Amino acid sequence: MDQSTISVFCPATIANLSCGFDVLGLALKGVGDRMNVRLTSNPGVQITRITGGDLPMDAGKNVAGVAAMALLEASDFGGGVEIEIEKHILPGSGIGSSAASAAGAVWAINNLLGDPFTLPQLVSFAVAGEALASGAPHADNVAPALYGGITLIRGYDPLDIARVHCPALLHAVVLHPQIELKTSDSRSILKKTITLKQGIRQWGNVGGLITGLFTEDYGLISRSLEDVIIEPVRSLLIPGFGEMRAIALKSGALGFGISGSGPSVFALTRGADTARRTEEALTRGYESVGIPFRTFSSPVNRMGVRPW
Amino acid sequence: MDQSTISVFCPATIANLSCGFDVLGLALKGVGDRMNVRLTSNPGVQITRITGGDLPMDAGKNVAGVAAMALLEASDFGGGVEIEIEKHILPGSGIGSSAASAAGAVWAINNLLGDPFTLPQLVSFAVAGEALASGAPHADNVAPALYGGITLIRGYDPLDIARVHCPALLHAVVLHPQIELKTSDSRSILKKTITLKQGIRQWGNVGGLITGLFTEDYGLISRSLEDVIIEPVRSLLIPGFGEMRAIALKSGALGFGISGSGPSVFALTRGADTARRTEEALTRGYESVGIPFRTFSSPVNRMGVRPW
Repeated sequence: MDQSTISVFCPATIANLSCGFDVLGLALKGVGDRMNVRLTSNPGVQITRITGGDLPMDAGKNVAGVAAMALLEASDFGGGVEIEIEKHILPGSGIGSSAASAAGAVWAINNLLGDPFTLPQLVSFAVAGEALASGAPHADNVAPALYGGITLIRGYDPLDIARVHCPALLHAVVLHPQIELKTSDSRSILKKTITLKQGIRQWGNVGGLITGLFTEDYGLISRSLEDVIIEPVRSLLIPGFGEMRAIALKSGALGFGISGSGPSVFALTRGADTARRTEEALTRGYESVGIPFRTFSSPVNRMGVRPW
Repeated sequence: MDQSTISVFCPATIANLSCGFDVLGLALKGVGDRMNVRLTSNPGVQITRITGGDLPMDAGKNVAGVAAMALLEASDFGGGVEIEIEKHILPGSGIGSSAASAAGAVWAINNLLGDPFTLPQLVSFAVAGEALASGAPHADNVAPALYGGITLIRGYDPLDIARVHCPALLHAVVLHPQIELKTSDSRSILKKTITLKQGIRQWGNVGGLITGLFTEDYGLISRSLEDVIIEPVRSLLIPGFGEMRAIALKSGALGFGISGSGPSVFALTRGADTARRTEEALTRGYESVGIPFRTFSSPVNRMGVRPW
């Protein structure tokens, strides 16, 4: 491979983590897209190939393309890039499909250019791509895809990202019911106001989750994985949500919730064994719902986008 | 001193810490009440003496008395207690005056009885006293008074308290403008609903503050000390609030806000020197406002209520 080409793995991510709507996210191992990125002497961004997903080849309409253009505009590189995308994360699944493409593109180009940009800058370029997909610029998938581990978006104006400690035994289980649920639709059903009481409960849980992660207190993590604001509304769009929660908790999961804007759901567990047991129980349980689905389980990915 | 009597120091506390309304709090050194508590063979709670404050001697109307009764009711001790209270924290000052009395009473009685109750149980007894003072049961002053350091109330139902790491250099400065501002009034002016956007910003800040405390990242702590919900309303009741904030930040403070429900305001600093400088600048600045006031600065008290 010459120095003008790189292949990267772009991890799937779980945003929100129940209580942390729009601020928390974590990166997954084993599930992610692959991209080949090549520097060219011709300016501009070309999407040369997409496999595994029906996505726009027009760079201006593709999240990876838009993210790449945002980076190139900020750089003094006079050339352009060609991008091949091998999708393994189904678009619309709720585990950061568009974020993976956007994050992968900017990480790869930055690497090829000799790392002129910082991680926070890469996040801001990738967010430009994300905005295209969701209708609202958000960073809670892009940040963990680029940083790895568990990230917090403290604020958006300006973008302020912090790493949160991730206990070694933390595993995630994902079940993806293959129904269509667009991020923009999934946002529009949310109420624009909440009660102060709901707010207090939510920021108590965010505080509890982060304290539990830093102190590796799995009991506190478990009690904090509660969403009193978004989940009661969004879960109505996900067939079998309540039953799956009961199955996951009965299998020993620490908590259960909606991954990002859905339709994927996730459980967090202490250890791989509980993750496997939870995945098996969810699989058995969801078969009766009659909707095609996929599941996987994974430790937290501490690296983020990396050469593949 | 025989084993049926104890004298305790009951620290003042700062609740909320800007973004953490009703969930965060920290304990102070140097400022606090003193109490003498004695076990008696006669059942019931007697407040035998109060100095430094015009507070009810009737145990059923006194926060320390109510907290003591809650503990005694849950215990198998057949006798009662006599309580002397030496107030140094002015009632209504916003640095946990009633919480100090409630926390001190239950800690002292528990100690004399041989520690039958856990810290979370002591908090719940003390909260019964607090409810009398504020009209709403809250634990964000009582918890740090009993645990010491910085505490998080993850949730109230059931009460779930966690310790948050406190960086060694963290100091607090308090300015108490001597105006009357009752907790119950200060709560009633709050709006009952907030926008989802405000909520996201607030829980991003709570997450940022706790992450900053655990990682000793003073920059992150500083950026997270923001309250977009309560402070804009409550600060209107505190003359000179905006000017004091500007003075504190110019002096190098990490952040500035309302202590609990006010009227006291606080700044957090990195180190004692900045605390002293901030206290001096606030003192000079507040003299022109024309309201009597007191100031002090203090490291965080890691011990909570202790024998004195």
